[in-house]
Amino acid sequence: MSDFRKAALDYHAKPTPGKIGIQITKPAETVKDLALAYSPGVAEPVREIAEDIDNVYKYTGKGNLVAVITNGTAILGLGNLGPMASKPVMEGKALLFKRFANLDSIDIEVTHRTTEDFINTVANIADTFGGINLEDIKSPECFEIEKELIKRCNIPVFHDDQHGTAIVTAAGLLNALEIQGKDIRKVTIVCMGAGAAAIACMELLIKCGAKREYIYMLDTKGVIHTRREDLNKYKTLFANNTDKRTLEDALDGADVFIGVSGPDALPPKALKLMAANPVIFACSNPDPEIKPELAHAERTDLIMATGRSDYPNQVNNVLCFPFIFRGALDVRASVINDEMKIAAVHAIRAIAKEPVPAEVLQAAQVAKLEFGAEYIIPKPMDPRLLPRVAKAVADAAVASGVARIPMPKHYMES
Amino acid sequence: MSDFRKAALDYHAKPTPGKIGIQITKPAETVKDLALAYSPGVAEPVREIAEDIDNVYKYTGKGNLVAVITNGTAILGLGNLGPMASKPVMEGKALLFKRFANLDSIDIEVTHRTTEDFINTVANIADTFGGINLEDIKSPECFEIEKELIKRCNIPVFHDDQHGTAIVTAAGLLNALEIQGKDIRKVTIVCMGAGAAAIACMELLIKCGAKREYIYMLDTKGVIHTRREDLNKYKTLFANNTDKRTLEDALDGADVFIGVSGPDALPPKALKLMAANPVIFACSNPDPEIKPELAHAERTDLIMATGRSDYPNQVNNVLCFPFIFRGALDVRASVINDEMKIAAVHAIRAIAKEPVPAEVLQAAQVAKLEFGAEYIIPKPMDPRLLPRVAKAVADAAVASGVARIPMPKHYMES
Repeated sequence: MSDFRKAALDYHAKPTPGKIGIQITKPAETVKDLALAYSPGVAEPVREIAEDIDNVYKYTGKGNLVAVITNGTAILGLGNLGPMASKPVMEGKALLFKRFANLDSIDIEVTHRTTEDFINTVANIADTFGGINLEDIKSPECFEIEKELIKRCNIPVFHDDQHGTAIVTAAGLLNALEIQGKDIRKVTIVCMGAGAAAIACMELLIKCGAKREYIYMLDTKGVIHTRREDLNKYKTLFANNTDKRTLEDALDGADVFIGVSGPDALPPKALKLMAANPVIFACSNPDPEIKPELAHAERTDLIMATGRSDYPNQVNNVLCFPFIFRGALDVRASVINDEMKIAAVHAIRAIAKEPVPAEVLQAAQVAKLEFGAEYIIPKPMDPRLLPRVAKAVADAAVASGVARIPMPKHYMES
Repeated sequence: MSDFRKAALDYHAKPTPGKIGIQITKPAETVKDLALAYSPGVAEPVREIAEDIDNVYKYTGKGNLVAVITNGTAILGLGNLGPMASKPVMEGKALLFKRFANLDSIDIEVTHRTTEDFINTVANIADTFGGINLEDIKSPECFEIEKELIKRCNIPVFHDDQHGTAIVTAAGLLNALEIQGKDIRKVTIVCMGAGAAAIACMELLIKCGAKREYIYMLDTKGVIHTRREDLNKYKTLFANNTDKRTLEDALDGADVFIGVSGPDALPPKALKLMAANPVIFACSNPDPEIKPELAHAERTDLIMATGRSDYPNQVNNVLCFPFIFRGALDVRASVINDEMKIAAVHAIRAIAKEPVPAEVLQAAQVAKLEFGAEYIIPKPMDPRLLPRVAKAVADAAVASGVARIPMPKHYMES
């Protein structure tokens, strides 16, 4: 067993199994304490909530509680291993919510027969929580699941594999394009992969200005084009009226490559086909579509990002999901809408352009970070992310009319 | 607003809403920590669980996690106020699980259309947890719900309003009968109330030796007898072939009165009808079926218990539920069976007969406690409950063949 594998298993097993637990947040030692926490005192908040259901936010933890919900059908890059195998990942996500945004978060693993059964189960328990983070649910079911749950729940429902990835990718890409002197409205984008993350990334880039007709999306059968008859309704939206068929056809003259597919899917030689000053996001994890050292050996004018922490420019969802939920829950938003997602994109972008605090350099173990080809996205440990992204998201929720309470005072002061 | 009401509302609202939260139980500060807790390290326990599903108990919090689940149809004595109004109670129950047995516990409030929909929802999320505590679900639906969930889940499912109440009542009653010199197999029992707690209490007393034909159960229409045609199938089990019709008829010569109905349902004068040395459990909360001072004024030979902490002999579920789950989860029992419930009864009984530790006297704010008419049940703050009741339950699980792992070492040492 490798040292890292052993460390990871030990971390999860010792001294107690798992990595999250429950804590009591109020006095609960004496008979008197317990008479307030439970019978007879608890009847008082019960009556208040029965009278006005919004009081549930005043007297319970609902407003700070995010469920991380999965069916285990697309766990990390490992595939459909079932709900139980997903539990360490879901508990890990809950840990990140607490660690980065002080949100209480609990995992729920769902066993179900049909997609409708999954949707119904989650909708039935949704009132328990302030928000729902869907996770590791396979495509294309994830699209219908998210859409239906947004309809049925009056709390934010957010499939992080789609939108978290899309938001961080968009933030990094817009910065990379700025450095390369390119306009999002004019670039040609090759998207390798046609799953949940790929489709969400492209949809968000379009909302940020990219043109659908300049996007070439590829699945395992090559370019998705209008004459293909094997497309599901989500891929059909990206069917391009083109003669391009192969990855090489698509890359010819392209400005941007976004990989959300699998290891080594982009042959280094093919980079030569791209336009000057290209941008490469090779997000397959842990093995990117092209290794950065091979890409840089092939061309010196590119900007590159990956999903890995040991190269520059890591596309990491943790830059977004804790903070987008923090902002949404702090103004009790009913949904996480496009305005809020785009606000998160711009808030994340902006941080990368500003001087980096010493503690971030220390955590990242680098001497210097300066906006440029090797630093287009903030580091996950950047303490500016929480106040800035959350505030931007909350602002957008208020401005777009989905907030149910005003901005909290501490946002005004920051 | 009364001082107590204000204190209860403040307790729940300030400084943050609610009373439980999530805590991180492993290091999660550095980039290195997070690489173990989440990607890429988390893939290792995922693979281990995919290979052997039992590893979920080794690498996640499942084995120490109890869900407190309700639909809010019978909240405390307040009735059907809906899932949201129940949340403070459910969070309170979760707090008690943590406080008394160090079990992590989270509440789930379920909105549903049909009983089948509720059952299906809970069964679909059950694998997330190590055990399920059903709570505040109205009768008679609660019987079918529990029965079906026990069938569909391979973790313990326990409706505390039924069995927690029954176990503590049985423990107290058996001790009271011992003091009164009566034999459970020969006593006549009047049970006022025919809801979930009443039926569960009577069923458990029968398993402890009481005779079904000596039990007179009353609902709002009087004695439940064999010529009534308005009985559901649960009440029918207690239809007595008798001419008794009223409470007074039933009390005539009876040894035991158990009230799980409503305030002041037992007129003091009626006590005169009972046999010598009777036992009165007036468990309606906060207002008992008869006030202890009125009962004692009427007769001097009775032993009395209530649901209140400000009188002697409080029937309090917290004497049971944290510990029965602790014992069940510690040997990974597949169910909480009758053997385990009866083991809990006897473990609780036994503690009341032993010398009381000084810390219990201090917590209860009394100078002395000695087994007798005013002390038939242990106090909730008794630290002996956790090791003793949990061990008895775990022992019974092992002996009855429902434990899936051996007794933990620390039980052997105690």
